[in-house]
Amino acid sequence: MSDAVKFILAEQDIPTHWVNLMADLPGDEPPPPPLHPGTKEPAGPEDLAPLFPMNLIMQEVSTEPEIEIPDEVREVYKLWRPTPLYRARRLERALDTPAHIYYKYEGVSPAGSHKPNTAVAQAYENAAAGIKKLTTETGAGQWGSALAFACQLFGLECEVWMVGSSYDQKPYRRSMMETWGATVHRSPSDLTEAGRSQREHPTGSLGIAISEAVEVAAQDPHTNYSLGSVLNHVLLHQTVIGQEALAQMAQAGEEPDVVVACVGGGSNFGGLAFPFLRRVLRDGARTRFVAAEPAACPTLTRGVYAYDFGDTVGLTPLMPMYTLGHGFVPPPVHAGGLRYHGDSPLLCGLVKAGLVEARAYRQNETFEAAVKFARSEGIIPAPEPAHAIRAVLEEAQAAREAGEERVILFGLCGHGNFDLSAYDAYLGGQLEDPQFSEADLEAALASLPEAPALT
Amino acid sequence: MSDAVKFILAEQDIPTHWVNLMADLPGDEPPPPPLHPGTKEPAGPEDLAPLFPMNLIMQEVSTEPEIEIPDEVREVYKLWRPTPLYRARRLERALDTPAHIYYKYEGVSPAGSHKPNTAVAQAYENAAAGIKKLTTETGAGQWGSALAFACQLFGLECEVWMVGSSYDQKPYRRSMMETWGATVHRSPSDLTEAGRSQREHPTGSLGIAISEAVEVAAQDPHTNYSLGSVLNHVLLHQTVIGQEALAQMAQAGEEPDVVVACVGGGSNFGGLAFPFLRRVLRDGARTRFVAAEPAACPTLTRGVYAYDFGDTVGLTPLMPMYTLGHGFVPPPVHAGGLRYHGDSPLLCGLVKAGLVEARAYRQNETFEAAVKFARSEGIIPAPEPAHAIRAVLEEAQAAREAGEERVILFGLCGHGNFDLSAYDAYLGGQLEDPQFSEADLEAALASLPEAPALT
Repeated sequence: MSDAVKFILAEQDIPTHWVNLMADLPGDEPPPPPLHPGTKEPAGPEDLAPLFPMNLIMQEVSTEPEIEIPDEVREVYKLWRPTPLYRARRLERALDTPAHIYYKYEGVSPAGSHKPNTAVAQAYENAAAGIKKLTTETGAGQWGSALAFACQLFGLECEVWMVGSSYDQKPYRRSMMETWGATVHRSPSDLTEAGRSQREHPTGSLGIAISEAVEVAAQDPHTNYSLGSVLNHVLLHQTVIGQEALAQMAQAGEEPDVVVACVGGGSNFGGLAFPFLRRVLRDGARTRFVAAEPAACPTLTRGVYAYDFGDTVGLTPLMPMYTLGHGFVPPPVHAGGLRYHGDSPLLCGLVKAGLVEARAYRQNETFEAAVKFARSEGIIPAPEPAHAIRAVLEEAQAAREAGEERVILFGLCGHGNFDLSAYDAYLGGQLEDPQFSEADLEAALASLPEAPALT
Repeated sequence: MSDAVKFILAEQDIPTHWVNLMADLPGDEPPPPPLHPGTKEPAGPEDLAPLFPMNLIMQEVSTEPEIEIPDEVREVYKLWRPTPLYRARRLERALDTPAHIYYKYEGVSPAGSHKPNTAVAQAYENAAAGIKKLTTETGAGQWGSALAFACQLFGLECEVWMVGSSYDQKPYRRSMMETWGATVHRSPSDLTEAGRSQREHPTGSLGIAISEAVEVAAQDPHTNYSLGSVLNHVLLHQTVIGQEALAQMAQAGEEPDVVVACVGGGSNFGGLAFPFLRRVLRDGARTRFVAAEPAACPTLTRGVYAYDFGDTVGLTPLMPMYTLGHGFVPPPVHAGGLRYHGDSPLLCGLVKAGLVEARAYRQNETFEAAVKFARSEGIIPAPEPAHAIRAVLEEAQAAREAGEERVILFGLCGHGNFDLSAYDAYLGGQLEDPQFSEADLEAALASLPEAPALT
């Protein structure tokens, strides 16, 4: 076992392929397909063609175990990849735990999170297909920043609908997108039918912002839409994280007993976990997986497993997933990237199959964990991965109670430099702590569309 | 020559010693000593003892060529060091220049700049000496954040006076310091005599904030003061930057023809340049050095070389340096870290000796350079190093005009995540562009204290 604090890979160690977990799913049945929102028949590649370039659609439906990363994408990855993996020795001491805590840190990217891993791949494929502009939504602004950055590198225009509550809380994320040349709108906006139809929800939601961006992209053949999570090809692009982490854990001379990551749409979780999960599926490795989400938007822990729209208005295909109902507008918690009614169908299937355990945390206990982390490890985490840190504290305490040298690996998917107003509120005792209610759940169930039942 | 984008060192490559340029200065005469503010006699170690622990004072006056880095400090350095060195290939293409542009990036530290390199060393020595609290000033907030972080790691209280204009422009830097457990005051404050005497300068200045922090530290034997730049021991601690850069340029297979860094008090410049400068002094290497500063606070390019106070009120020793007069309050440009009337005596001596060339840049041309950099390299620079980038663009253009493969190395000492309101103003055409005037210079000369003349 290494006594190092930081595990570093060289530029040539950037993965050459993405890991496609679709090829290794358990069971004989293929996962349930997405359905066309009108016909409710299985949606094929041609249904996605108005929004995405064919290369990304082929990645979306691929069952190949690995997909090669284009050289142009790897070349951009070099600006920040490989990212460091840390042993959190100071946190371990602060917690007085025998657990060994490791974290993979994606905050070193220009946009400050894991999001550029897919933004760059998506911008590249769209530019290669002759597309001139990408539209998208953003919650906390991490995805919008990442796409603004990527579009700038490949000469694409970028237009972003930013969830209203985050737009108000994080003005500097907007400035960041504009510095990289993007145009940013507060969502719901008056620019789209979808936005105008949601004026009664002024704080907005990811679902509403998606509707706006999709509506605009669908109207122009030179404009495509880009999604920062949920879809198979997005999770695929993020698997560079887990592949590097596998190599770095080998450097450290340890195997994780448990892998922890936060879940909004699932791309951060999938990116870190899937390469480890593939070993479980292929070789019977005994790793546990924990998905951490906000108690105010508890998709995996309280949602129902059903077909639902990916957006609020109902423009996208119906996807098989845990959902709180596409009409659910989560309260404006600071983890803007986790305010989504659904989750990646691929991840939901794994939760359903019992391969991934989901846990939900309240906002205040999450920030308590974040401050503890910041004061021992230095890095101030974004509110999203602070949910993972909260779960790690539980695991570390369990290890102490059991007297076990448990090895914990978690994903620190972004820094909190743009979230300091939330820290301000927490430190001042002013942070609200919304909870999901039974009434929310009833409303969610009522808003589900007519569709075939899932088993 | 390597074709890599990023040059990485391993944890064990963190330097074991700091480089003390005092041992290699040119000429037979020692540099002029600091003077006691009352007697105007050379100030000795005992004069500094009320503010600093003896180990730091010994570093301040040392003429040993190298000083060993304590293990406890190197252990903390591992949280972010070694920092990466980049070849700016995308910027080179955007500029269509034959120059090879390299940058050493210190923004990967928890506080987002080079400042923790010395903050950690200072907090360690103070804690080891039994001190309970450190006071300090901060401009843009980078230094205050760094000291807050370092104090947290070594169990010290931290009290920061933040320059008023930056306090207003950068509320999240204050939240960051508070997240790490520090107490932050807007300067000028009502808490000190120095602050109360400067109410007519509500935007504040580094000089005023220094006076406040020094006043408080001098009154309590368990409280010391900590300075983020200017002093010899601070520049000393920063030489880890240049030592790593030397090793990384060797990896790249190139020698810099010119080394560029911004100057506020001189620690970023000294940290990068001094290990390269030592080679010039010892081996006759032919490297040029360019110090970039704001035209609104042009200490090196317009100041006079004279004894002056380090702070506004006149509590510190008189230091031999280029100065705009300790009474000069720079306009509130966004490069808050560069708003200082004086500069490191060590650096000033090198400018005087013709070993370092100084250049001054206006605020708008500096942000123009910063946006160009952000849109090609991804990283959004802090306004301070954006001055260095402006100088790099000049060097790159000169290389193109001369048809030369000039090798340029510059210090990217911090990211601009907390400076996006300034980018907002620039992109919106609202950025002011203050200039230093002849009247400013006359006032500066008039404010100089009685002291022996410098030659």
